[in-house]
Amino acid sequence: MKKPVFYHAGCPVCVNAEHDMIELIGRENIDIVHLGNDRSKISEAEKAGVQSVPALVTPNGNVLHINFGASLDDLKK
Amino acid sequence: MKKPVFYHAGCPVCVNAEHDMIELIGRENIDIVHLGNDRSKISEAEKAGVQSVPALVTPNGNVLHINFGASLDDLKK
Repeated sequence: MKKPVFYHAGCPVCVNAEHDMIELIGRENIDIVHLGNDRSKISEAEKAGVQSVPALVTPNGNVLHINFGASLDDLKK
Repeated sequence: MKKPVFYHAGCPVCVNAEHDMIELIGRENIDIVHLGNDRSKISEAEKAGVQSVPALVTPNGNVLHINFGASLDDLKK
C-alpha cells in the first residue's frame, strides 16, 4: 500500500502532531517530509493539495489538514 | 493502550476523514463518536478540548482538529 505522507515544517505544533501520527500509525507506515529542511518538496506538497502544515496526505489522495486550534502559548515555544 | 477517539458529526467531510482514519489506524484501534447521533457526548468532547469536528483526540490527550480546507463542493453533497 502506498504510504500516507505527513508534511510539516518543524514548528512545535507540527512536531507534536508528528509524534502523535507516528504513535498512532507506526513509524514504518508513514513518510515524513520536513518542508523547512527539504524545500524542494514544497511544490510536491502543493500539487498534492496541501494548503497548510501540518498535513497528512492519505494513500487515496485525501489531504487532512491538522491543527490543534494552536494556542498562542504553543507558538511562543 | 487507551484508544484515540475520533469525533465527527456525520457531514460528508467528517465521513471521508473517518474512513481515512480507520484505514490508517485500523478500526479496532480507534473509537468513533458521532456527535450528531450521540449528543450526550458533546460535553465529553468539549472537556477533551474539541473545538470543531472532525477531530481526533489522541491517547496522550492532544486534540488534532482535522479539515480538508473543505471545499464548497463538499458541503453541497
